[in-house]
Amino acid sequence: MSLLTVGTMAYDALETPFGKTDRILGGAATYIALSASYHVEKSNIVSVVGADFKQEHLDLLKSKGVDLEGVQIIPDGKTFFWKGRYHLDMNTRDTVDTQLNVLEHFNPIVPDSFKDCEYLMLGNLMPSIQQQVLDQLPKRPKLVVLDTMNFWMDHFWDDLMVALKGVDVLTINDEEARQMSEEYSLLKAAKKIMTMGPKYLIIKKGEHGALLFHEDKVFSAPALPLEEVFDPTGAGDTFAGGFIGYLAKTCDISFENMKRAVIWGSTMASFTVEKFGTERVADLTTAEINARLEMFKDLVSVDIQLA
Amino acid sequence: MSLLTVGTMAYDALETPFGKTDRILGGAATYIALSASYHVEKSNIVSVVGADFKQEHLDLLKSKGVDLEGVQIIPDGKTFFWKGRYHLDMNTRDTVDTQLNVLEHFNPIVPDSFKDCEYLMLGNLMPSIQQQVLDQLPKRPKLVVLDTMNFWMDHFWDDLMVALKGVDVLTINDEEARQMSEEYSLLKAAKKIMTMGPKYLIIKKGEHGALLFHEDKVFSAPALPLEEVFDPTGAGDTFAGGFIGYLAKTCDISFENMKRAVIWGSTMASFTVEKFGTERVADLTTAEINARLEMFKDLVSVDIQLA
Repeated sequence: MSLLTVGTMAYDALETPFGKTDRILGGAATYIALSASYHVEKSNIVSVVGADFKQEHLDLLKSKGVDLEGVQIIPDGKTFFWKGRYHLDMNTRDTVDTQLNVLEHFNPIVPDSFKDCEYLMLGNLMPSIQQQVLDQLPKRPKLVVLDTMNFWMDHFWDDLMVALKGVDVLTINDEEARQMSEEYSLLKAAKKIMTMGPKYLIIKKGEHGALLFHEDKVFSAPALPLEEVFDPTGAGDTFAGGFIGYLAKTCDISFENMKRAVIWGSTMASFTVEKFGTERVADLTTAEINARLEMFKDLVSVDIQLA
Repeated sequence: MSLLTVGTMAYDALETPFGKTDRILGGAATYIALSASYHVEKSNIVSVVGADFKQEHLDLLKSKGVDLEGVQIIPDGKTFFWKGRYHLDMNTRDTVDTQLNVLEHFNPIVPDSFKDCEYLMLGNLMPSIQQQVLDQLPKRPKLVVLDTMNFWMDHFWDDLMVALKGVDVLTINDEEARQMSEEYSLLKAAKKIMTMGPKYLIIKKGEHGALLFHEDKVFSAPALPLEEVFDPTGAGDTFAGGFIGYLAKTCDISFENMKRAVIWGSTMASFTVEKFGTERVADLTTAEINARLEMFKDLVSVDIQLA
């Protein structure tokens, strides 16, 4: 059940219709590991930060059972920085500033003690870096999940296609699924994308939930209707962490269990958007999580009668 | 279980990325009655058409058990006509032409034999006409469902607010729910709208399914992922017909049964969009419907485990 996550650790500056932040903790690996920590007592990260990365943030991750041996700290480097502004609908955002910093020359190194990983989460990153991590593992993990985005499709399509060959589950949003497949129907898009490598596809639709595809099967999970979406940053990564964390804990990668894992991912994501950054997902109780899982039960339960 | 539908009977000319039609059968009452006919052996319509309305279309409805005594045929009038063009994404459309014709002076008259109706479907129409129908019933029906759209919100807000006072269930789409409530969050929107009269609210989200709200309860029904959406015209009316038809047949207006009715509505709508106009919903077998209900079962079934 060992879980390895590769992805960014970052500082974000965010602006939403509800407020703005200065540099706060962010990054795909951060959200994934925090979200997964509610399932797995220990997990491992491969990432890179600069000398400016705060000890308190390293300590936060450690306190959640995250082993940071694979996190390179570049003494004369600065941590990856992203500044974004969300529009009123919270579904669209503009990148105001991106400073790759230490990410620019990131050469991921998987420590020996991480190499027996059974669950591998390739967080949103340059596809060739995701590939490098997979290549360093002597034994193929039981499950490889890859998250990506339109930027890599636009600029690193060939690398992405290579990386996808080694992947079990791909997670992207609906716009990206359409871009990737050149199909408008998500059903057609999914069928096409599943010929590119991944045997499972999760299409994230924000406030409209998520779809899980495998062969001819489809599962639709709603998103929890929320009074307020305060900051969507990290929702997709939190989803991924809840998803793979649940699978790692239960050691069951059947389609039925993946459906449950999707609900777990959605549940965790519903917390993240309630406050800025990682604040909410870093500090949840089992009671809070269970209350929300109960809400999901009510939201989807129906006893369908045939004619 | 008697069902009365008031709404338009129309001719539509449609243009989609997949083709175009000349004047074909349309109208809210038409779609609603056809869709409901798979539940109720008999139903009644109050509507108006011109002398150009074809006998074959009256015969089609009669063959589905629809009593047309309440359909006024204006000898020197022409049937309501709508011409629309859908964009590539099928979610947005332009009205190319609207000819109100006989609708302009429509004064609905509920025949005595219809007045004991228990289920009343107020199809998308001018709110004052919807109100006139309700006013003619000596006894309040067991359930009143009203469908409306942004046009009436823009131009007949006060009339709509009056009509809503007498309604149990309101069906609108997500954009309209936001417009009506001036709230972006659909949860907040629903809470506000349910203070305007309806105790139940259905928010239709097209390819993203539908949400059913009542008091603090929410149910989320997905839409069936389809390979092709050929023509979305009438999908909302077909949904409404499947919804109220199921409730009328089962004589059960509990929230649990409304959830099943929403699935029925979605199932019926998934057929309508497969071909132009009413072609598909006018000609379904029980086996076809059951096969699709089974697909819905697979789509939503999940056994959620708490932490």
